[in-house]
Amino acid sequence: MAANSQFSIAVHILAMLAQSGEDKVKSECLAGSVNTNAVVIRRLLGHLNEANLVVSQTGAAGGTRLAKQPGDITLDSVYKAVNCGEVFALHPNTPSQDCPVGKNIEAVLCCIQKEIDRGVEARLAKYTLQDIMGMVEHAVA
Amino acid sequence: MAANSQFSIAVHILAMLAQSGEDKVKSECLAGSVNTNAVVIRRLLGHLNEANLVVSQTGAAGGTRLAKQPGDITLDSVYKAVNCGEVFALHPNTPSQDCPVGKNIEAVLCCIQKEIDRGVEARLAKYTLQDIMGMVEHAVA
Repeated sequence: MAANSQFSIAVHILAMLAQSGEDKVKSECLAGSVNTNAVVIRRLLGHLNEANLVVSQTGAAGGTRLAKQPGDITLDSVYKAVNCGEVFALHPNTPSQDCPVGKNIEAVLCCIQKEIDRGVEARLAKYTLQDIMGMVEHAVA
Repeated sequence: MAANSQFSIAVHILAMLAQSGEDKVKSECLAGSVNTNAVVIRRLLGHLNEANLVVSQTGAAGGTRLAKQPGDITLDSVYKAVNCGEVFALHPNTPSQDCPVGKNIEAVLCCIQKEIDRGVEARLAKYTLQDIMGMVEHAVA
């Protein structure tokens, strides 16, 4: 699976916004730190906005700030905002229902999938954006 | 993140092979149960072969069988065989080293990434292919 970097970039963006406090930050500035295109940042900000993690304002004096305190943003909410929230996907096509394995494998995999996804979210939920700021400041993970 | 279904299909294939015991199974037969193209199956079998989970033989009398007993194949080894093994990726480009956040965020994310990936593998390691067979037979996940 080619894992994607949306989550990493989203945490980076949120850490930048946390550092700026009430000041709004422009997507070009965020893009400079992330070292990517502002279009990528704006698309991600759209997802973070929908998840009520950030507040964006358009226009010349516009920009983005956090919608909550860094201590109130947990990484599982960031993960859910930018991901489909599944470590692995089920079958793209329904398996053969004439095959004893094919008939039941999806239910089994679905159960394991839910357990794995819940485990990931529980681990991410232990970290707040405030924790990340502390780790970034100490340059120690 | 669009999670992919390689792991689900791999577990399905291995469950089919487990059911066939010492008999070799052709990729067309596996493809029929999975409801996909035999090319997809053969590519996956290649990865499972490299990971020493299956043994394939080409030719008219060829096919694939498990390389180990179902009780000796844990799902984390299947996951590692077909995935890059990361729930989320780090930045595609190095963040700006002039920015205090950009400079340190990768080390922080790398640490969290490792913790999350270890958690996924540990949960998958609890299940053997034998367990999956039992779950499939009882049609209860």
